[in-house]
Amino acid sequence: MSNLPYSFQTAARIVAGNGSLDRLADLVQGCGEVKRALVIAQNSAVRLGFAERIEAQLRQAGIASERLTGMMNEPTADHIGELHARIKETPFDVYIAIGGGSVLDAAKILSVLRTNKERVEEMVGTDRVRKPGVPTVLIPTTSGTGSEVTPNAIVTFPEEELKIGAVSRHLLPAVALLDPELTLELPGPVTAATGMDAFTHALESFISNKANPISDMFALEAMRKISGSIETAYREGRSLKAREDMLIGSMYGGMALTGSGTAAVHALAYPLGGKFHIPHGVANSMLLPHVMAFNYDAIEERLAEAATVMGLREGRGASRTAAAEAVIEKIAEWTKTLDIPQQLAAFGVREEHVPELAVAASKVTRLLDNNPKPLDIPQIEALYRKLLA
Amino acid sequence: MSNLPYSFQTAARIVAGNGSLDRLADLVQGCGEVKRALVIAQNSAVRLGFAERIEAQLRQAGIASERLTGMMNEPTADHIGELHARIKETPFDVYIAIGGGSVLDAAKILSVLRTNKERVEEMVGTDRVRKPGVPTVLIPTTSGTGSEVTPNAIVTFPEEELKIGAVSRHLLPAVALLDPELTLELPGPVTAATGMDAFTHALESFISNKANPISDMFALEAMRKISGSIETAYREGRSLKAREDMLIGSMYGGMALTGSGTAAVHALAYPLGGKFHIPHGVANSMLLPHVMAFNYDAIEERLAEAATVMGLREGRGASRTAAAEAVIEKIAEWTKTLDIPQQLAAFGVREEHVPELAVAASKVTRLLDNNPKPLDIPQIEALYRKLLA
Repeated sequence: MSNLPYSFQTAARIVAGNGSLDRLADLVQGCGEVKRALVIAQNSAVRLGFAERIEAQLRQAGIASERLTGMMNEPTADHIGELHARIKETPFDVYIAIGGGSVLDAAKILSVLRTNKERVEEMVGTDRVRKPGVPTVLIPTTSGTGSEVTPNAIVTFPEEELKIGAVSRHLLPAVALLDPELTLELPGPVTAATGMDAFTHALESFISNKANPISDMFALEAMRKISGSIETAYREGRSLKAREDMLIGSMYGGMALTGSGTAAVHALAYPLGGKFHIPHGVANSMLLPHVMAFNYDAIEERLAEAATVMGLREGRGASRTAAAEAVIEKIAEWTKTLDIPQQLAAFGVREEHVPELAVAASKVTRLLDNNPKPLDIPQIEALYRKLLA
Repeated sequence: MSNLPYSFQTAARIVAGNGSLDRLADLVQGCGEVKRALVIAQNSAVRLGFAERIEAQLRQAGIASERLTGMMNEPTADHIGELHARIKETPFDVYIAIGGGSVLDAAKILSVLRTNKERVEEMVGTDRVRKPGVPTVLIPTTSGTGSEVTPNAIVTFPEEELKIGAVSRHLLPAVALLDPELTLELPGPVTAATGMDAFTHALESFISNKANPISDMFALEAMRKISGSIETAYREGRSLKAREDMLIGSMYGGMALTGSGTAAVHALAYPLGGKFHIPHGVANSMLLPHVMAFNYDAIEERLAEAATVMGLREGRGASRTAAAEAVIEKIAEWTKTLDIPQQLAAFGVREEHVPELAVAASKVTRLLDNNPKPLDIPQIEALYRKLLA
């Protein structure tokens, strides 16, 4: 816990709940004078009819729209630049993005590419975006990244095998729209990986060296909601209540990390994404139990607090250690019940890759600095090896 | 609890914690190109040296400033109009307000008077402000209204003996700055009345018909923080920890009411302010236990949830009724330990005024509609009479 001043910022407006997608046209009109909208849609959002629902609403409100599809997962700087080249000549007043974290992150970058002369490469890092972008409306269809409420966007640089975050208040959306009905068709493995990603945001924010009273509230509430619903959402995907709890929980996870940052799990996950294309949620999920076990002696008290909101204290008496250990056990249990991969070998990672992965992770100092225990390269290597055993 | 979509919005940026006032100049520069700032300061903020600290920081950052003082408590529309006339010819790029809820509310209205041609009278109500105002930086010196994070501003109309809220996203500040050190000198009676006001925001939001998962989180966390610190803050005003918890708790109270609205306590409090100039926090504090007792059978389950975060469940077994009653008892206990007035007679209210007060309260339908039980005029009269007995 830091004693320094702390800060918080989020989407200018958040609208949530069943049926909130039907409010879209009103919300778009609240963004200023909007004549033409760009609908940036993940392919699955097109297939499920969401893009068409959005466009029909816009038509009825007298707003012209065009559709941009074919976004890549975990987009590269080049890909985003090419998409921008395709749309930049048309005068759009708002960007509406619907999809998972990759699509929302890409939309955030596209919105500022329209108003700034810098290229994507010059925008990554902290506070490197100069001017506000075209207003964005972000509509998540996964319960994972929390991208719809954060000032962050992750960009992949394949030549350097790196994923780098752009962090700027100009990346915050005008509207975050969270309609749980849009997540009902999310396949089980995606539900598991993105949900564990959201839980990781919450738990890492809570144990971060920059944790503060605001990020703590969001982190605890995220852990309460996600731990109470992730198994149901995985097993019974059509449970609207579980889907709503997951969606709101992942939003709180995004709010938590906005205030306090994530830590070593994310630092070690990025090289797995950058070098081996392991999906971000999967990489975080795999690493989470091992990094928490590594951190254990520095975070026992915080884990015990997490145990309370996760409903893991009943019947265990008042022991702090028992409560803290219950959190670690629960995470390990999820690895099984949610069928989270636990073998890096399945993604082509072998022992010989460990040293370069560890060197790459050790360079993510922005996140490693948040970790309650410092990690040297041999310790990072040992953590990766847990997933090769 | 409503099943409809729900929404949330807040200050564009929140910075909190000890010493956060020292970040002011940076935050002001984040509001755009700022050459000249207006510092709107409550008299106590001048006396305690806060205004001078702000101006010194601005000077060092090369920002010119002027100071506006002499704000009235619970300002009238005319008073705000006169203040605007005094400042409107000078080109200020930002308004920085430091003080209690009255000063912050006035600053919010002043900021939109600068950019809109409507008068104050035409701005009250919901969504009646057309254009964004000059950016505001709001710095609370009480832990009560939560005005620093809400889209609301309360204006008094003395001819009609009314207080009316203006509610508009254009009233949200660019920055809310919450430095608990600024609240250390707050006198006991103000600590008690404003603190109970903040608690009222939280509890009324939690039992509101428009309560939703987002407002619930803020409401519960506000009740947790305030119930854990209000007595210490009252008795030991220099306790920085208690002051921080009160300040963050009151901010959460403001966030809760932004999402779900307040209810009958506030509806009945406004006529006491409008007709008898009873300070808003005092009026709310007086009414709170009686209105909650009136609502009891509709809110028992919610009160029991509140009891949990207020630490009132231990040793009371699992009974929902016992837990809910503990909340009502705790509020009644605070009335004594915090020396909250419980006699309307002390403010000149007599039995003969009850009918007109009740008629006035019955017209505050915006808030009465949020109350979990409907109230007719005889029931409202009976509630006022509890404070005349």
